[in-house]
Amino acid sequence: MKAVRLHSYHKQPGIDDVPEPTVMGPLDVVVKIGGAGVCRTDLHIIDGQWAARADPTLPYTIGHENAGWVHEVGSAVSNVAVGDTVILHPTPTCGLCLACRAGNDMHCLNGSFPGLDSDGGMAEYLLTSARACIKLDPKTQPEDVAALADAGITAYHAARKAVPLLYPGTVCVVNGAGGLGHIGIQSVKALTAATVIVVDGNAEALKLAEQLGADHTVLADGKHVDAVLDLTDGHGAEVVLDFVAEQGAQQDAFAMTRRNGSHFVIGYGSNLDIPTLDIISTERNIVGNLVGTYNDLVELMVLAQAGKVTLHTKKYPLENAVDALADLDAGRVRGRAILIP
Amino acid sequence: MKAVRLHSYHKQPGIDDVPEPTVMGPLDVVVKIGGAGVCRTDLHIIDGQWAARADPTLPYTIGHENAGWVHEVGSAVSNVAVGDTVILHPTPTCGLCLACRAGNDMHCLNGSFPGLDSDGGMAEYLLTSARACIKLDPKTQPEDVAALADAGITAYHAARKAVPLLYPGTVCVVNGAGGLGHIGIQSVKALTAATVIVVDGNAEALKLAEQLGADHTVLADGKHVDAVLDLTDGHGAEVVLDFVAEQGAQQDAFAMTRRNGSHFVIGYGSNLDIPTLDIISTERNIVGNLVGTYNDLVELMVLAQAGKVTLHTKKYPLENAVDALADLDAGRVRGRAILIP
Amino acid sequence: MKAVRLHSYHKQPGIDDVPEPTVMGPLDVVVKIGGAGVCRTDLHIIDGQWAARADPTLPYTIGHENAGWVHEVGSAVSNVAVGDTVILHPTPTCGLCLACRAGNDMHCLNGSFPGLDSDGGMAEYLLTSARACIKLDPKTQPEDVAALADAGITAYHAARKAVPLLYPGTVCVVNGAGGLGHIGIQSVKALTAATVIVVDGNAEALKLAEQLGADHTVLADGKHVDAVLDLTDGHGAEVVLDFVAEQGAQQDAFAMTRRNGSHFVIGYGSNLDIPTLDIISTERNIVGNLVGTYNDLVELMVLAQAGKVTLHTKKYPLENAVDALADLDAGRVRGRAILIP
Amino acid sequence: MKAVRLHSYHKQPGIDDVPEPTVMGPLDVVVKIGGAGVCRTDLHIIDGQWAARADPTLPYTIGHENAGWVHEVGSAVSNVAVGDTVILHPTPTCGLCLACRAGNDMHCLNGSFPGLDSDGGMAEYLLTSARACIKLDPKTQPEDVAALADAGITAYHAARKAVPLLYPGTVCVVNGAGGLGHIGIQSVKALTAATVIVVDGNAEALKLAEQLGADHTVLADGKHVDAVLDLTDGHGAEVVLDFVAEQGAQQDAFAMTRRNGSHFVIGYGSNLDIPTLDIISTERNIVGNLVGTYNDLVELMVLAQAGKVTLHTKKYPLENAVDALADLDAGRVRGRAILIP
Repeated sequence: MKAVRLHSYHKQPGIDDVPEPTVMGPLDVVVKIGGAGVCRTDLHIIDGQWAARADPTLPYTIGHENAGWVHEVGSAVSNVAVGDTVILHPTPTCGLCLACRAGNDMHCLNGSFPGLDSDGGMAEYLLTSARACIKLDPKTQPEDVAALADAGITAYHAARKAVPLLYPGTVCVVNGAGGLGHIGIQSVKALTAATVIVVDGNAEALKLAEQLGADHTVLADGKHVDAVLDLTDGHGAEVVLDFVAEQGAQQDAFAMTRRNGSHFVIGYGSNLDIPTLDIISTERNIVGNLVGTYNDLVELMVLAQAGKVTLHTKKYPLENAVDALADLDAGRVRGRAILIP
Repeated sequence: MKAVRLHSYHKQPGIDDVPEPTVMGPLDVVVKIGGAGVCRTDLHIIDGQWAARADPTLPYTIGHENAGWVHEVGSAVSNVAVGDTVILHPTPTCGLCLACRAGNDMHCLNGSFPGLDSDGGMAEYLLTSARACIKLDPKTQPEDVAALADAGITAYHAARKAVPLLYPGTVCVVNGAGGLGHIGIQSVKALTAATVIVVDGNAEALKLAEQLGADHTVLADGKHVDAVLDLTDGHGAEVVLDFVAEQGAQQDAFAMTRRNGSHFVIGYGSNLDIPTLDIISTERNIVGNLVGTYNDLVELMVLAQAGKVTLHTKKYPLENAVDALADLDAGRVRGRAILIP
Repeated sequence: MKAVRLHSYHKQPGIDDVPEPTVMGPLDVVVKIGGAGVCRTDLHIIDGQWAARADPTLPYTIGHENAGWVHEVGSAVSNVAVGDTVILHPTPTCGLCLACRAGNDMHCLNGSFPGLDSDGGMAEYLLTSARACIKLDPKTQPEDVAALADAGITAYHAARKAVPLLYPGTVCVVNGAGGLGHIGIQSVKALTAATVIVVDGNAEALKLAEQLGADHTVLADGKHVDAVLDLTDGHGAEVVLDFVAEQGAQQDAFAMTRRNGSHFVIGYGSNLDIPTLDIISTERNIVGNLVGTYNDLVELMVLAQAGKVTLHTKKYPLENAVDALADLDAGRVRGRAILIP
Repeated sequence: MKAVRLHSYHKQPGIDDVPEPTVMGPLDVVVKIGGAGVCRTDLHIIDGQWAARADPTLPYTIGHENAGWVHEVGSAVSNVAVGDTVILHPTPTCGLCLACRAGNDMHCLNGSFPGLDSDGGMAEYLLTSARACIKLDPKTQPEDVAALADAGITAYHAARKAVPLLYPGTVCVVNGAGGLGHIGIQSVKALTAATVIVVDGNAEALKLAEQLGADHTVLADGKHVDAVLDLTDGHGAEVVLDFVAEQGAQQDAFAMTRRNGSHFVIGYGSNLDIPTLDIISTERNIVGNLVGTYNDLVELMVLAQAGKVTLHTKKYPLENAVDALADLDAGRVRGRAILIP
């Protein structure tokens, strides 16, 4: 089968011919990929930023955002059958460690992260497990929902964690209205009655944000921290969802956060560098976010099927993966790029 | 009356004669001070670290940790009467803003912080308000409990916020076993069944920590992060209460925090500088802490009266305030220094 | 001034001439009433159901749902001034007990409940306190918002408590679409993405419910428990907000509640009688609800000003209070009846 | 093998010879029983109270509280191996439904409850699943810990849910100091700093309660509700853990609950019959409780291994099961009766 394989860091991946994966254990599932999302993390992986954390043996297949159809199942798989349309939670989990038993799939002690630490889904087939599969209405087109499998779950997970903080009268800043941010805006609007301010450096992205329900938009032009303070009577926002967190955006995001507020770090790339006196004198929180739980993805699919979260995508044939990566890097993608095998 | 007054930053305060405060509004209360705690924040104030944040008109009286007896009350005060023994919440509040109405006294939009932004309690008398007073058993000696009014409430507030994270089987690191930390250890032991590891650079402080219930102690000798990881099967602690947060301790505290864990910043002084990739790839949180609520202090007094939290203090006459500050700065105080007018 | 006064239980109140109230203490506020809501609780009061719990000295003025303009203020009132448009939290509170300090206004140890235990607001003027006043935009007409002061806050309080249970994919039954229920529907829709099923015995009320956003409506015709089970794959609803809780509705509401779900009791009148085996074998909860906090009402006013909660009212001159009570009792009021002095 | 089998309701079970269970599916586990607890629920089962809810095909083996050694494992079992000492979560679960994925094992949509709806553990061997097994230190004697598998987890689950309500200064009533209650007392003492009042009709049980840390004990002699009110300044307790909930105890438990407090129903047998006006006018909650999660049992084992929860047991050979049931019914068991095959 065709697969998008990384051969060495700092070089573009190639489109290779590799053997199809097959079921080995009783809970294994092989999925025929219908859509594979392209994520800023793929750029970071090629850059080598994840090498110290996920360390796959090169070459390997990237792609951690997938939906498709069940192709083969292990002997003990009871929740899906061959032919089912599925979206995949990004981290197949053991189901037995304390984190799994508490529902914290992304903290499984024995989990893997296909596309980061093992072969991923920018390919015709992907090996995953029963616990990663969410069965969908057979009418769903995998390419239409694949972006929910990582961009979606990550944005939704952060928004859902923020719900208790976002009662009526509060303000949520969405910093960055790209692949994750445009889902974040819709998730906050669906889950809360808070006022949403969207900050982005791209005027077109702000236009999309408005269509998706943003109450205010602010162009990231160097005066955006002051603009957010002006919109909040000088106080800042109770919650800042920072989908950028690089090149200074992370410092601005903290500066936009209100006394006793919370700065959710979701994007990444640069260091956050804050005087501890600023943290304690205002009792602000910095909240890490990583993907989400299986149930987060189930809930997000409910919102998507109800039309409360819609995706903006740009589709490419699998063979054009390198073009898609280049478009993403150059800021030429509104919403999410999707590869179709 | 005698008062410890700061005349200019970077210089030791003097002991001045100033007029006694008197009641002006219907909810004012004047308290005769029985004990005034000496805090590392007093050193930071003298250093000028708070000048940009609290900006009092110099000279002014420092001291933000007080207990004593009610001396005079305004016409509408109903909760205390002249002669009552009281401990004082450090921030007199309006009781009318949304933060007050939610119980978040330390985030009152109209509050003051005597000793930081106005005349404090290292003096014979202090002007405060009805909402700051907690009435105590008349047998209580103010000098014995004063340290609970700031060191105590701050340590307890952080410990109480951590309770949902500290179920049986989890680990709490207490970083720093000084004035706040020694109360933090006891608060965590009283409120949870978690394992407590105490880290401090001073062997005597660790000895005290053991007596107060620490399950493990670790000398901060440069290998202490590894020592904590060894004690936690390489994972780190679910909660790190960082009572130091300066001179590198804040970085170590984050490094001791487990995946999906929380680093509570309580002390301050240096910058926390963390790659956002480290925050998101492990979904760790950094939690700000500031003093505590009125009810936090009420609860802590319950623990103190039940003997579940005991204080280690070193007492000085008010006139010797400068000696007490010097002893604190030099690490010569176990527990808390208290001035007695 | 004119006031609606109850002279003896089981008899209709009269419209009496009584002296206007005046400010006594420094935190007192006298409000000129612009609108006074008529509540099922007024019928229950006349019936004597509250005699054992609130025990006012008869005759007294009923009415516990009020908005108007500030007419006179005590010397220490700082949050409102004469002429301000205000809506009133129903329970003036001390601001000093532990419940007040935690934001639980309705559990104040020293609070009163004008209209239940002392003179209320079906009158030209009402004596209340600074802590009960919420200042509104001067363009607001008190008669348009008065119903939020009790029906609104009570419905909103219950809905807000249910938010953590109502994630996407869950179902909320609103049992009763009258004065409280029609606000409850809108509150749940504004605060969550849950599916809302409304149950009521009146077809017109169900029509209103649909206009307000109900996803499904069910006529309470004896087969309504089965109808709700059918709509929920036989499971019942995660949350049932029971705004009726009398004449069997309370038993039906529990029966509609899903395993591990919560039955919120908001209305009242009859006994809830449940085998403890049914409570434990399904781990269901029964949740009491009483009015709400001051901040609940502030948040609800945010929703109302944003047009997310609208009121359906029927207005009467104050003199026609007895007609309004009769209309309510006979089921002739859609939404809420409001008296205008 | 020998097994305690129920042949018909309202008759004592017999000790039968039946075939040993064997592994069928890849996640099955057969455990050699080391200890099987005897529970009041076994009496209720024999009485027919569960027939409508669990409906096993008679005859079947009772016993739902077990520990032992792994005897045989299915091909995909990775968390335990033959010979391991284990305690068993009472409900083998699918690990795939939304309840399992959220950690709510006892609400698994596809779970079973051996001993209630299928063959249980009052036998030499029990068939269960990988997800039910918690591996223990090999030095542990199963007969010493078996009571934690149901009495323990149930008491601990309720206590843990109550933790956020039981801050310093609050009161927890433990109603009933028998098999569950004596673990409940220790759990509340280990997890909180609340004051514990124990109510029981048996003076010896109260003596045991004192040894286990009860702050106050009250004999259930008809004046016990007043006694609890007296101990709480007339207010009642923030939390009542009702381990009895039959023969009027459930009504008393509600009556002991403070305004805004919570009555946890854990025992069962009679109806709870409360005016809805009493529920709403004081905003009290009635909280159902059923067994607990897998992680609850893991946490409880941590407390047990640390000596913070100790068991009082009375041991019988498996053959004497009927005697043990009779002793329990007659109130002749302090703590828990355990059968040893």
